Amino acid sequence: MYIGVDLGGTNIVVGLVDDLGSLLTSLSCPTGRERGFEAVVADIISLSKKIMATDHVKKDPVKGIGIGIPGIADPETGVVISCVNLFWENVPLREALESALDLPVYIDNDATLAGLAEYEVGVMKSAKSGVFLTLGTGVGGGIIIDHQVMSGKHGIASEVGHMVVGDSDVPCNCGRKGCLETFASSTAIISYTRQHLKEHLDSVLHERSEGNLELIDGRMIFDAAKEGDDFALKAVHRLAHYLAIGIMNIVAVIDPEMFVLGGGIANAGEFLLEIVREELEKQKYFKAVPVGSLCLAELKNDAGVLGGAFLAKSKVEK
Amino acid sequence: MYIGVDLGGTNIVVGLVDDLGSLLTSLSCPTGRERGFEAVVADIISLSKKIMATDHVKKDPVKGIGIGIPGIADPETGVVISCVNLFWENVPLREALESALDLPVYIDNDATLAGLAEYEVGVMKSAKSGVFLTLGTGVGGGIIIDHQVMSGKHGIASEVGHMVVGDSDVPCNCGRKGCLETFASSTAIISYTRQHLKEHLDSVLHERSEGNLELIDGRMIFDAAKEGDDFALKAVHRLAHYLAIGIMNIVAVIDPEMFVLGGGIANAGEFLLEIVREELEKQKYFKAVPVGSLCLAELKNDAGVLGGAFLAKSKVEK
Repeated sequence: MYIGVDLGGTNIVVGLVDDLGSLLTSLSCPTGRERGFEAVVADIISLSKKIMATDHVKKDPVKGIGIGIPGIADPETGVVISCVNLFWENVPLREALESALDLPVYIDNDATLAGLAEYEVGVMKSAKSGVFLTLGTGVGGGIIIDHQVMSGKHGIASEVGHMVVGDSDVPCNCGRKGCLETFASSTAIISYTRQHLKEHLDSVLHERSEGNLELIDGRMIFDAAKEGDDFALKAVHRLAHYLAIGIMNIVAVIDPEMFVLGGGIANAGEFLLEIVREELEKQKYFKAVPVGSLCLAELKNDAGVLGGAFLAKSKVEK
Repeated sequence: MYIGVDLGGTNIVVGLVDDLGSLLTSLSCPTGRERGFEAVVADIISLSKKIMATDHVKKDPVKGIGIGIPGIADPETGVVISCVNLFWENVPLREALESALDLPVYIDNDATLAGLAEYEVGVMKSAKSGVFLTLGTGVGGGIIIDHQVMSGKHGIASEVGHMVVGDSDVPCNCGRKGCLETFASSTAIISYTRQHLKEHLDSVLHERSEGNLELIDGRMIFDAAKEGDDFALKAVHRLAHYLAIGIMNIVAVIDPEMFVLGGGIANAGEFLLEIVREELEKQKYFKAVPVGSLCLAELKNDAGVLGGAFLAKSKVEK
């Protein structure tokens, strides 16, 4: 048995996962991040103890805890270096949990662990190496090779949203320019569309947004694109173009077997996939050589908790 | 014992390497690439047989052969997919060698194997993960994690020269634009310097090149930069800027412990290193988090043969 913890800006979810990867039970509570590190940790401990008191655990003890955070942690010390959403900086998360729960605790980025869940029981389950890209307000990633997440020496691997993929004047949250996140996130496509709509008088987005740019969101853009609106299609192709460059940049480093798209933007489904595949074809650097397949994520809400449990399992078994 | 083969456009070198990584003996001959695949393979076989007839091998048999090629090979089939320098396309190199030598044969890119040699007995020998970047007429790479080279599913991993790092009008050999190779190779810095020299009337490069742009080479540019020539320094900083972006793109995927610079450009030594470090500092995406250290390659001519032997060793022992 393993415990997986999905620590989000809104909720904490703690789940019990068996050795085969089935989620047996889970508990949750609001994160209440304004209360600070100690209070949030106390809730994770309390939920974990409740889970550990269930009958499941009496029969088969918990061997480790894996926790996904919306930030980065030092893989060696277990210190959360930065977790902007929770207002955390350099907090000793692993130490706090290990001393209270007397179990090995492993921490990684939430997108990385969602990728691990897709690798173990989702769409990548028959692949040896795979990369999960989550396209939401930002762009996150999870790289998994031989059942191990790629965290890197300093905990900043799998941060594929911060690969530079082109020139841009849009500043990224990371302080640089040109990051994949500034081209392929929902924030990016919405901002691009709002900024350039006035140059496209024939776009249906004028009518649908009732002249109020603030009403334009990702769904509205993708809906218009699906209906053939030229400007909306242009915005989607632009996103796909840079995403394809990002994917090929990953190929140039690790050349994985599969790429998987998740996050809000991936709700555009096969429509998005076809456009990204088209752009990918243009970006291949050795035309004769195939690149990894591209598909959509399968798992929904449980991915975070499952990924946490699989992280613990992969480390304990290593 | 292992045999390492360094197959270059000019020479074939075949060496015998013991289990500790010492090169015991080596033989070489001109590649004669114009003779075609069969003739080149026959020479590799002949040199290997001579090596296998030495006294060293009588005491301790050869367990495998590793060969570095200036191109890409399919890691599953051992077919060389593309080797532009040798005019090879889809040739069954592994099959040809295995059937003649009755030993397991492993093939990888020459830059990747030079990186493996640096990892095993060179400057990366105490690192767990490292990336070798060779900055020559092109930009090649070798990524090594836990003693295994990163070849990828289709043999096109570690091709870091083909990461896109910015916008550019210069076409890359791969058919795309914006590749690291078009910014950070000797070809790139020479071409940039020749193209923009006329805008910098005060540069010493006018005098040194005697008004003949064709005379400008990498050494002339770096020498002028070391002496403080503004334009030459600008060209070097531009190379370092894009190299730093490339390094950070690799960090965003695998966050390795070390980066090592080799190839002709790296002959600029500590001077180059300091400028790249300076540019790297500007490109960090999580300012508080360290990135891998950066240093110069240590091994010289033997790196290719050693890398081949280490490739065979890593595969045989796996």
